[in-house]
Amino acid sequence: MKQSDFFTKTYKAFPEGEETKNAKFLIKGGFVSKASSGVYSILPLGLRVLKKINNIVREEMDAIGSEEILMPSLIDRKYWEKSGRWNVDVVYKTNKNKKQDNEAEFGLGWTHEEVVADIAKNFIQSYKDLPKSIYQIQTKFRAETRAQGGLLRGREFLMKDLYSFDKTQEDLNKTYERVIGAYKTIFKRLGLKTIVTEASGGDFTKEYTHEFQVLNDAGEDTIYFCDECGFSKNKEIYIEKTHTKCKGDIKESRGIEVANVFKLGIRYSKYFDLIYQDENGDKHFVFMGSYGLGLTRVMATIVEEFSDDKGIIWPESISPFALHFISLGKNNKSADRVFEILKKAGVEVLYDDRNDVSAGEKFADSDLIGIPYRAILSDKTGEKIELKKRDESDVKFVEIREIAKLIKGEMQDAGGKMTNLASK
Amino acid sequence: MKQSDFFTKTYKAFPEGEETKNAKFLIKGGFVSKASSGVYSILPLGLRVLKKINNIVREEMDAIGSEEILMPSLIDRKYWEKSGRWNVDVVYKTNKNKKQDNEAEFGLGWTHEEVVADIAKNFIQSYKDLPKSIYQIQTKFRAETRAQGGLLRGREFLMKDLYSFDKTQEDLNKTYERVIGAYKTIFKRLGLKTIVTEASGGDFTKEYTHEFQVLNDAGEDTIYFCDECGFSKNKEIYIEKTHTKCKGDIKESRGIEVANVFKLGIRYSKYFDLIYQDENGDKHFVFMGSYGLGLTRVMATIVEEFSDDKGIIWPESISPFALHFISLGKNNKSADRVFEILKKAGVEVLYDDRNDVSAGEKFADSDLIGIPYRAILSDKTGEKIELKKRDESDVKFVEIREIAKLIKGEMQDAGGKMTNLASK
Repeated sequence: MKQSDFFTKTYKAFPEGEETKNAKFLIKGGFVSKASSGVYSILPLGLRVLKKINNIVREEMDAIGSEEILMPSLIDRKYWEKSGRWNVDVVYKTNKNKKQDNEAEFGLGWTHEEVVADIAKNFIQSYKDLPKSIYQIQTKFRAETRAQGGLLRGREFLMKDLYSFDKTQEDLNKTYERVIGAYKTIFKRLGLKTIVTEASGGDFTKEYTHEFQVLNDAGEDTIYFCDECGFSKNKEIYIEKTHTKCKGDIKESRGIEVANVFKLGIRYSKYFDLIYQDENGDKHFVFMGSYGLGLTRVMATIVEEFSDDKGIIWPESISPFALHFISLGKNNKSADRVFEILKKAGVEVLYDDRNDVSAGEKFADSDLIGIPYRAILSDKTGEKIELKKRDESDVKFVEIREIAKLIKGEMQDAGGKMTNLASK
Repeated sequence: MKQSDFFTKTYKAFPEGEETKNAKFLIKGGFVSKASSGVYSILPLGLRVLKKINNIVREEMDAIGSEEILMPSLIDRKYWEKSGRWNVDVVYKTNKNKKQDNEAEFGLGWTHEEVVADIAKNFIQSYKDLPKSIYQIQTKFRAETRAQGGLLRGREFLMKDLYSFDKTQEDLNKTYERVIGAYKTIFKRLGLKTIVTEASGGDFTKEYTHEFQVLNDAGEDTIYFCDECGFSKNKEIYIEKTHTKCKGDIKESRGIEVANVFKLGIRYSKYFDLIYQDENGDKHFVFMGSYGLGLTRVMATIVEEFSDDKGIIWPESISPFALHFISLGKNNKSADRVFEILKKAGVEVLYDDRNDVSAGEKFADSDLIGIPYRAILSDKTGEKIELKKRDESDVKFVEIREIAKLIKGEMQDAGGKMTNLASK
């Protein structure tokens, strides 16, 4: 893609009124735009990142045999009343038609246990229909009194929610572990280090649940954890300052909750008569689980984790482009030719072809946008391309005819240092 | 995919309270589920169709150089008030936080001229920044007093909306024609025959606009058209029963509006100060266009257009699967082997592997679900597979070892008749 064709531009200054790194960089770089407090538009660069996050999540959900669906945001009051959640604070309410003075009849979906249990009832009647699970990637709404943390806690955000259906508590336990395994794979692919932390069940369950926490000062949770044995509890359920599992010290940190898993048991099955018949014809409630993963929040967390004072440093798996190719010379034809070679070789490349922008501005934009590899063609580099990683200062000079092959090879070798390039 | 693993099952009877073909077949076949009047969940089979529709639309929007974004559904009152659309009947309203008794502060997005003009202001300042266009694929909300037509007119639905930005009315006219061209390509790929009809601008513009209408009795519009010269007007602006373009007769028909295109001119640019500077430093308002395409409505329209008394007949381009492979015999191993061969050959296949279902039920399900090709393996067919199109009665017998190759070839030949198979 040519940068001169891009819908967005970067801003010269940070946005006013934003305190978090994620909102500052994502807005300044043209990834998102603020519509109102806690509400953001995702712009082309941001959507490229978000789609890559979504696809990684999708692949791992499909891999554990889950099927994708899309439930509505307008959830009829009758659903929430069955579960007693109509008056939960975070529900946005609205009416069915223009009579806005009537009592509200819809609650905007912030979670979908009620709707999914009601759907499942149509397709689960026998033990033969179990286990099953479905998930969706959907915009969610939460009436936050005070939206904060940029895209970490919005009033509107993108989320993946999976719901599982099992015959017994034992089967649910197995499914729960399987989803935790899939989440670990997802966060590894996203380049995020997470700690599985015990927490309270909130509005979902009275049992303890687990959260995936990224240790980061921008988080709103406080967690206590031990590096040695993996012990970790959210402050909300942490009582004593010691633990018995090992002799390691308990540390305290702020954490960003990027995902959570809940064993719902038969709570929602009871509300919605979600029942199956076993081999003997006896009837039982279905055991449900609920598993959330914040997609826009993951994007924001990655910015909090991977940036320096110049801008974002995207992990390769979700970078909007694999390579930022910058032309500094006066020979546009030569740069255009390199761009064509790179495209033809299947390199996902952003080409800074702008003629009316200084080299300094191009580098500043490139650092801000944070594509992991940068290639420069200038009069100084002559017949060679200057290649550099976003987070390294080492520079290599590469023959034009070698660049596509080299970048492709380097792209596949995600962990590779620039110093490895010479030996290829 | 094995049918025994599927989350959904078909229903024995049509759903109660649904009058349209699309809602009847889509619910009975397990494509969608009704949550409340005008609000549907999209289930795995339905989402497979919808994603294929979305991808065709995406490809054609990208092909005309548009970039994808995602704007919010929670649109601050300040946006709507600038354009005077805060009190439009179809806006669902809600509050920013739990104080539900306060006056509403958000209107749920049913269209995004306001938000997009405000975003564009950040990136369009000079004639060099034009022309530009962006689009989104997003859930929309309309407070319909009476939801009707199944998925043809819902309170919540998926839509593609594109917005264009041009320097002059003349440039806008060109962009308008370019989007109309892309729409024609989309509907051709979707297998839908559309008529471009002149209509009123509704809440968008005072100028006449154009709608893409599918002639179908399930539609809520009445249009007048001439087969010979392409004349076509919506009843709302049609005055005389004659036209001067040619001597052809004017016919009347019901129509489903699957897309619309609006020349907004500078209306929204004025509200949001969307201004560019020309080569001489003079300032002008940007000329905008707005182009909608109903994605869930397209899915419903296709069901209205392509079905018989047994069920749906999906066009190949958006069928949930390319082939329905049905095993009737007792030799599961043999059927499993054919399934593996088909998968390995890259055929998108739904495999009816169910053991506890009669042949009659399998055929009824297959006709209802409407995958364009059906392959049967039974004790009767022996070493051969019985191959049939959903909408034809001709049957061919094909060697097991030939099936994958044959189906793949046939799949590529979208218009091919079964009779062509023998010669391959």
